[in-house]
Amino acid sequence: MKFAACIEYDGSPFYGWQRLSHAPTVQEHVEQALSQVAAEPIQVVCAGRTDTGVHGLGQIIHFETSAERLQRGWLFGSNAHLPDGIAMRWIQPVVEDFHARFSAYSRRYRYIILNRQARPALLHKRVHWQHGELDAAAMHQAAQVLVGEQDFSSFRAAGCQARHAIREITEIQVSREQDFIHVDIAANAFLHHMVRNIVGSLLKVGAGERPLEWIAELLALRDRTQAGMTAPAAGLYFVHVAYPAVFGLPSTYTLPRFVI
Amino acid sequence: MKFAACIEYDGSPFYGWQRLSHAPTVQEHVEQALSQVAAEPIQVVCAGRTDTGVHGLGQIIHFETSAERLQRGWLFGSNAHLPDGIAMRWIQPVVEDFHARFSAYSRRYRYIILNRQARPALLHKRVHWQHGELDAAAMHQAAQVLVGEQDFSSFRAAGCQARHAIREITEIQVSREQDFIHVDIAANAFLHHMVRNIVGSLLKVGAGERPLEWIAELLALRDRTQAGMTAPAAGLYFVHVAYPAVFGLPSTYTLPRFVI
Repeated sequence: MKFAACIEYDGSPFYGWQRLSHAPTVQEHVEQALSQVAAEPIQVVCAGRTDTGVHGLGQIIHFETSAERLQRGWLFGSNAHLPDGIAMRWIQPVVEDFHARFSAYSRRYRYIILNRQARPALLHKRVHWQHGELDAAAMHQAAQVLVGEQDFSSFRAAGCQARHAIREITEIQVSREQDFIHVDIAANAFLHHMVRNIVGSLLKVGAGERPLEWIAELLALRDRTQAGMTAPAAGLYFVHVAYPAVFGLPSTYTLPRFVI
Repeated sequence: MKFAACIEYDGSPFYGWQRLSHAPTVQEHVEQALSQVAAEPIQVVCAGRTDTGVHGLGQIIHFETSAERLQRGWLFGSNAHLPDGIAMRWIQPVVEDFHARFSAYSRRYRYIILNRQARPALLHKRVHWQHGELDAAAMHQAAQVLVGEQDFSSFRAAGCQARHAIREITEIQVSREQDFIHVDIAANAFLHHMVRNIVGSLLKVGAGERPLEWIAELLALRDRTQAGMTAPAAGLYFVHVAYPAVFGLPSTYTLPRFVI
């Protein structure tokens, strides 16, 4: 039997998604919990790995098992064995040819910036705080040149292992809601650090340190050394993965938002 | 010089507001930070003490000092010396007869319940999770008998030190927004554990374990031993304190809300 499941996690206490030999990761905890419920070793495949400190709301996994449990047994059992910062939101059987990574045709991230004089207390490690005033409208306008199928070498981590840097951004929206600025990005797939590098450059535009046209110039340069810093992991949320409707997975999602 | 300030805090890492000899509290950290900025010992008075695990968004304090600093110096200096879970949101001078506790004529709390099958991950210690379905409309209807000036002995902690149990609830609203149920309560003042004891009883109505009329019966009994359990601290937010406009403090506030 093959199952798909949705995993929510607070990125701050874990060393990212991918299993490591020497540090606690989300994947390791998820596999341990599922293995305990199934009473057999289980390995999972995820839609997209996330780095240390990056949060997950709609991370999708698949795994195979011979164990038979009620759907409620998988959900409550897994959540009973997972640490506080990780929860399974839903789980359901899927057809054999579903693959959490290769079946996905679109991913969505939200980056949350708290833009006020006082640093966050309740949202510590949940948002990126910047106290100097940011122009969200300028950030939005500058970002629009990134939409489309393009070479994103300028926004790719030095250690990125993808074969090429061509990705298609289908949407990028920057919007302000009181003290919060949301950067929403959807693409067919992302390069390593791509969202955080884009946000790091947009922050320079928002702060007035660079003109709107700078983002287009960076994109054309295809040179990572010219772009802004990698924005901190704490503000980043892996929100949603889209699959063809034929797989019958829940297609609704919520964009994370904090009002405080 | 007398100052008023607004303090935001994550209640989970601290042993409540009030200074203790043997454990870290919010008051202790605030006084230490202000004392460092002022370079003299500073003691603060708060609008309302909160228990271990209860969060603060609009806690108001006052203090006196002979130190002269720019407003920005007080704000950024205090926040630099406060731990991650505590932040000063604003600070301003006030007239001599302002008192954070005695000048207040109304307080507002919000209690947040996450009502879904999967427990929270990102909102661990920020909400109270209940997986069985709750009827928020029934909770709202049952709660309306609590509005008015009444004797709240049934919802008062055993150790509550107030001289009497008469308080005036001016508003109580229970509303659902997707998986979240918000209980909003405003009153002239609150008894120890009053909000959490009211919510604990409303949860029994929401779960269908007690009829709507039970809340009125409890109120009439004036007997704490009959009411529901004290709802967990994690869901409770001290949102706002209202003062006469003559003091010129910011009167706007936001109701905490999480969308995930």
